[in-house]
Amino acid sequence: MPEVADAPDAQALRARIAASFDRQGLMTTLGATLAAVAPGEVRIELPYGPGVTQQLGYFHAGATSAIADSAGGYAALTLMPEGTEVLTVEYKINLTAPAVGEHLDAIGTVLKSGRTLSVVRFEVVAVTGDDRTTVALGQQTLIRIGG
Amino acid sequence: MPEVADAPDAQALRARIAASFDRQGLMTTLGATLAAVAPGEVRIELPYGPGVTQQLGYFHAGATSAIADSAGGYAALTLMPEGTEVLTVEYKINLTAPAVGEHLDAIGTVLKSGRTLSVVRFEVVAVTGDDRTTVALGQQTLIRIGG
Amino acid sequence: MPEVADAPDAQALRARIAASFDRQGLMTTLGATLAAVAPGEVRIELPYGPGVTQQLGYFHAGATSAIADSAGGYAALTLMPEGTEVLTVEYKINLTAPAVGEHLDAIGTVLKSGRTLSVVRFEVVAVTGDDRTTVALGQQTLIRIGG
Amino acid sequence: MPEVADAPDAQALRARIAASFDRQGLMTTLGATLAAVAPGEVRIELPYGPGVTQQLGYFHAGATSAIADSAGGYAALTLMPEGTEVLTVEYKINLTAPAVGEHLDAIGTVLKSGRTLSVVRFEVVAVTGDDRTTVALGQQTLIRIGG
Repeated sequence: MPEVADAPDAQALRARIAASFDRQGLMTTLGATLAAVAPGEVRIELPYGPGVTQQLGYFHAGATSAIADSAGGYAALTLMPEGTEVLTVEYKINLTAPAVGEHLDAIGTVLKSGRTLSVVRFEVVAVTGDDRTTVALGQQTLIRIGG
Repeated sequence: MPEVADAPDAQALRARIAASFDRQGLMTTLGATLAAVAPGEVRIELPYGPGVTQQLGYFHAGATSAIADSAGGYAALTLMPEGTEVLTVEYKINLTAPAVGEHLDAIGTVLKSGRTLSVVRFEVVAVTGDDRTTVALGQQTLIRIGG
Repeated sequence: MPEVADAPDAQALRARIAASFDRQGLMTTLGATLAAVAPGEVRIELPYGPGVTQQLGYFHAGATSAIADSAGGYAALTLMPEGTEVLTVEYKINLTAPAVGEHLDAIGTVLKSGRTLSVVRFEVVAVTGDDRTTVALGQQTLIRIGG
Repeated sequence: MPEVADAPDAQALRARIAASFDRQGLMTTLGATLAAVAPGEVRIELPYGPGVTQQLGYFHAGATSAIADSAGGYAALTLMPEGTEVLTVEYKINLTAPAVGEHLDAIGTVLKSGRTLSVVRFEVVAVTGDDRTTVALGQQTLIRIGG
């Protein structure tokens, strides 16, 4: 995914998404950060630590899902005018490999941006040094509110 | 869901599930507790607080999903012999109402317990005093490891 | 599920759903029939035959899904005023057992009927004589059009 | 998706998949054909006709799902040794646009081929002349039997 360029539009878009992200208490609790914002695509990072694990010490599917859900929602929001909110209607996620790594990258990519509903694909990758392993894949439906 | 009776089997079952639950660092981080354990059904509670919210101050879908995923997984585990683990293959969740309340109750109920795969239904209810509102409904597939 | 009583309202509801069902060419092609209509719940039957099978001779997941999708959609439509249509936004289905039997019963049951979106649960049961086996379980999101 | 080359391996792969496809009575009933077979990717075509419609005359979601499910299943099967079967564990499908066109193309693409479980992505495109519109997107889990 492209890093955000320094062009004014890209900065404004990132600022708008970051303002909402920073109000998500759960992201702060988990230690997640907004890593990249582009039109139709958002990436969120989650470092590994004992506070995000399941019983075997992997990242918990709930932590994986939380950053995937936020990455998908913000990807949808990038394509909407200011003053709009999106809410998750539903999503489906496959956990395809044990989520083990230094951090997770959750990338949401818009497949369809509609007037009422949007459909987003997300992928979560476990990263250790140069090694990248896909650990989750999913599809999400979102509804636009206001705007 | 029936509260756990004091019969030895019920105590042993609860102890087995609790031993695994207590190793899930994410549940501690979120403040979730194992509220009830019965064969084929588990309930997890999550109190409201600023650390589990999305941008509008509701419970974040990721927090809702995390306790739903754990409730579903432990419901499946109650029907398996000691020494078995279950991992989430995939799940699907609909967020059916804003998740606003004093706490959430996530209830996982086994629909099918197979040799390899189990299918679980989960429901998450927002509770404020005597008021109970369903806020999420989903279905989960789990795979048995070892045992 | 209750059979439709002969009360005028029940007859009118059934007639409204049947008028739409009869325009679904796929239901005729498969040989499916509208078996029962009640507020919030619809049942569709599909007899077994060589034209609805997969490679092992079971009912094809596509045939199972087709009647589940229609049963769910019509269940949602029963709770809406005349002149309304519903379209499937998405669904998720688990195939929980080989679909073998004299016929399938697909039962759609509304979980939430909203202004814009409805959420429906469906179950498909394979029937042979008195034997009934659940072969599929799912959850569906629908959007209301017009009305 | 690449058309099948004339190399012996490609012919053998196609013949193996076609032998199973030809035993799926539902595909014959719907008029679907096996359009392309490659390792990890299969395409199935379904011409439009009054026998595959819903109440508004579009392709029925059940017809769309049936070819998507088969395309996904056969995509998974291409990566497995002879004598193996795959069965659909579950899938999720979003219907993203009205399915209107001369024919549908359902393309299944393997995301992960595991020892027990595989995960496949599918897309269904409505085609009219040179116009191609995505009408459905989904994700499927399959289990390997025998082989």
